[in-house]
Amino acid sequence: MSVNLPAPDLKELYPVSGVRIGVTEAGVRKANRKDLTVVLIDKGASVSGVFTQNRFCAAPVQICREHLASGAGVRAMLINTGNANAGTGEDGRIRALSTCAALARELGISPEEVLPFSTGVIMESLPSERIEAGLEGALADAREDNWLRAAEGIMTTDTVAKAFGAQVTIGGALVSITGISKGAGMIRPNMATMLGFMATDACVRPGLMHQLATELAEGSFNRVTVDGDTSTNDSFVVIATNKAAHTPIDSLDTADGRALKAAMLDVARKLAQAIVRDGEGATKFITIKVEGGKTQVECRQVAYAIAHSPLVKTAFFASDPNLGRILAAVGYAGIADLDQVGIDLFLDDVHVVVHGGRNPLYREEDGQRVMQQSEITVRVVLGRGDAVDTVWTCDLSHDYVTINADYRS
Amino acid sequence: MSVNLPAPDLKELYPVSGVRIGVTEAGVRKANRKDLTVVLIDKGASVSGVFTQNRFCAAPVQICREHLASGAGVRAMLINTGNANAGTGEDGRIRALSTCAALARELGISPEEVLPFSTGVIMESLPSERIEAGLEGALADAREDNWLRAAEGIMTTDTVAKAFGAQVTIGGALVSITGISKGAGMIRPNMATMLGFMATDACVRPGLMHQLATELAEGSFNRVTVDGDTSTNDSFVVIATNKAAHTPIDSLDTADGRALKAAMLDVARKLAQAIVRDGEGATKFITIKVEGGKTQVECRQVAYAIAHSPLVKTAFFASDPNLGRILAAVGYAGIADLDQVGIDLFLDDVHVVVHGGRNPLYREEDGQRVMQQSEITVRVVLGRGDAVDTVWTCDLSHDYVTINADYRS
Repeated sequence: MSVNLPAPDLKELYPVSGVRIGVTEAGVRKANRKDLTVVLIDKGASVSGVFTQNRFCAAPVQICREHLASGAGVRAMLINTGNANAGTGEDGRIRALSTCAALARELGISPEEVLPFSTGVIMESLPSERIEAGLEGALADAREDNWLRAAEGIMTTDTVAKAFGAQVTIGGALVSITGISKGAGMIRPNMATMLGFMATDACVRPGLMHQLATELAEGSFNRVTVDGDTSTNDSFVVIATNKAAHTPIDSLDTADGRALKAAMLDVARKLAQAIVRDGEGATKFITIKVEGGKTQVECRQVAYAIAHSPLVKTAFFASDPNLGRILAAVGYAGIADLDQVGIDLFLDDVHVVVHGGRNPLYREEDGQRVMQQSEITVRVVLGRGDAVDTVWTCDLSHDYVTINADYRS
Repeated sequence: MSVNLPAPDLKELYPVSGVRIGVTEAGVRKANRKDLTVVLIDKGASVSGVFTQNRFCAAPVQICREHLASGAGVRAMLINTGNANAGTGEDGRIRALSTCAALARELGISPEEVLPFSTGVIMESLPSERIEAGLEGALADAREDNWLRAAEGIMTTDTVAKAFGAQVTIGGALVSITGISKGAGMIRPNMATMLGFMATDACVRPGLMHQLATELAEGSFNRVTVDGDTSTNDSFVVIATNKAAHTPIDSLDTADGRALKAAMLDVARKLAQAIVRDGEGATKFITIKVEGGKTQVECRQVAYAIAHSPLVKTAFFASDPNLGRILAAVGYAGIADLDQVGIDLFLDDVHVVVHGGRNPLYREEDGQRVMQQSEITVRVVLGRGDAVDTVWTCDLSHDYVTINADYRS
C-alpha cells in the first residue's frame, strides 16, 4: 500500500535524447523478476553523482566514486537488484569490477566509463556470473522510451514504480527532464536515497554538475526519511546529455540555470517524496515543517527528531492526536538552550500548543479530524529566529514490522 | 510479555531504615489503580537526583531541580502515574507546587522539602485536586516494608513491577540497598530513566551524593534504550538515610566507597535492565557490546545506532540473522574516519564478519541458532583502540506498534 502515489504517468516520461535504457530478468536472487538494468549514455554528456555517507558503503558505491573521479567520463550505468554487494569485503569489489569490465567489453568502452549500482540484501556475495550472463538481454532491450521499465527494473520492496518528468524551455529550446527512484525501507538518505537517477538533454558544463547534483539532493532526497536507517548503497546520479539546442549553462545563478534547477528540483522532490509515500507499511504522508529556528541546521535536527520518533510515528498510524509525543521529540532534538516557552505547534490549521503549553482553545476533536487525513502537515515554531526547514516522512505501522521481519524469507 | 523478568523477590526487598512508603488509589486517570505513592524520609538523609536532558522537561522535573538546589533537604517524595504534567506550561507548575504544599502541610515540613514526580500522558492538565484528596490514604499506608507496593504504584504500561535489593557489609555494618523503577516505552534515558528510586541506610556524606547518583545512572539507566525516545519526565533519585553503624563514606575511591558503589550499581543495573526486559512489545533482551574504539563515546555512538535501528530491531523480532543491517548501522553511526576493513562482528560465540566482510566460515544456521534465543549478545570490534561500551535494548515487535497505537484509548 502506498499513500496517494499513482502509477507513473507515461505521458510525462519524456525520452531524453542521448540516453537509452534496457532491462532484463537475470535471476540475481529470484527468477521471473526484472532485476538488471543498463543505462547507455552518448559520448559528451555531463554526469555527476552523490553517494551515501554510510562508512560501510557498498563496493559499487566505492567504485562509482573512483570511476567518477578518474575523469574518464560516464558512458554506461549497470544496476542490479536482489543483492546490495555491501559488507562483502574484497570479494565484493572484485565482482563489481568484473561486471563493469564485462559491460565495457560489450560496448567497446573502458571499464572506468561504467558506474555500477546494487540494491538488495546486505552481506551476501554478488552473483556476478548471472549479471554478466544477463547483459546481452539487457542490451538488446535498450531504447530511449524505456523509463517505465527502468523504474520497474530497480524496485525491491517498492510497491509502486517511481518515475516523473517535466519539460521546460531553456534559452529558447524545449528541454526534457526524466527521473526514476526506488526505495521503501532503510531510508534516511545522507547525500542521496537508495537509488535515484535523473537525466536531461539540457546543456550543462561538466564543472557545474557536482553543484547541481548536490543542490538537487539537498532539496529532495536528503529531506526524506522512512525509518532513519541510512543505507549502505544510497546513490543519486544526474545526467545532462547536452543534446538540446541552447547555449550551455555554466552557472546556476543565471536565468537559464535557475529555470533548469527549479524544473529538475520539482522532479527530484516528486521522486524523493514517492519513496516516502511508498515507505514500508506507510499509511500516511507527513510533512514536518520547523520554523523560527536560529539556523536551518537546528530546524532540520528538530524535524528529524520528530520524523524518527517511533512514538510519534505510531500515533500517526493510529490517527491518535497524542501530540505531547511531538513536544517530547522537540525537547530531545539536541538544542541545548531551547526554551519551551517559545514553542508553538500546529497540526495543519489547528493551533495545538501556545508558548509551550496546551492552547486553551484547542479541542481534541480538531486534532482528531486532522490525524485521520492521509496527508498531514506538522508545523513547529521554535520562536528563536528566522530559519526554516522541511522533512517528509511516513507513519510506523504493523506492516513495517511485518515487511522487515519477513524481508529475506 | 517481558523477557526473563520474574516478579520481584520479596525476600530481596530489604526495608531501609529511615524510609517509609505509602500507596493509594487516587483516581488520577483511571479508577481502581494504584497511582499515588508517597515516600517519607527521616531527617538527616543524604539525597541526590539526576533528571532528563529533554528541553521539554515536565513541571515536576523543574521543581525537583529547584528544590534539590534550595539546600532545604529532602523529607518526602510524591509520585503519581496517569499524567506526566509535561507540556502543560504555567498551569502545570502551579498544580505541581500545590501538591507539594499539600503534602508538606500534612507532614509539618516546608514545600521545598518535597520532590514531585509524574508519569503518564503528556499535555493534559494534572488533576491536582484528586492527588491532594488521595494524600490521606497514602500516608495512612506508610511503612518501611512497602517497596513492592511502591513498585506497583509507579507502573504505567509496565507489565511487571520492578524492584531489586542487596545487602553488603560496609565498615563492619550490614547495609541494605533497595530500589524500584518503572518504564517500558519512551525509553532512551539521558541522565536517568523515566522513574528510578534507590535507597540505602548506608552513611554517605551529602557532598558525595551527586557523584554517586551520576555514576550509578551512567552505568545503568543511561545505557538502556527501548525506542530512542528520551522522556520529558526521566528522574532517578538516590537516598542514603545514614542510619547504618559505620563511619560515613566521603569518597568513592576508598574501600568502603567502592564496595557500596559496586553493590548499588548492581541493583541499579538490574532496575535499568528490567525496563528493557519489560520494553513495550519486547520478546528479546539484547546486549550490544562495542569494543576496540578510540573512545568510549564512539563505542556508545555505535552501540546506540545499532540499538535504535528499526531494521535491526525487527530482524531480532523475526529471529532472522539478517546481520548486514547491523553493519549498516555501524556505518552510519557517525564515526567519520571509520575503516570498514577493521571491523569484526560476533553474535554470541558466532564470528559473523571478519575484516568488514562475511566470515568464510560463517554458516547461516549458526546465526539462526543464536537469533532464536531470548537473550543475545551482539559484539562489534572496531579495531581502532582499546575503548569499550555496552548498551542494553530489546527488539521491535508488532506489539510495540499495537501498544503505542492504542496507549490513550
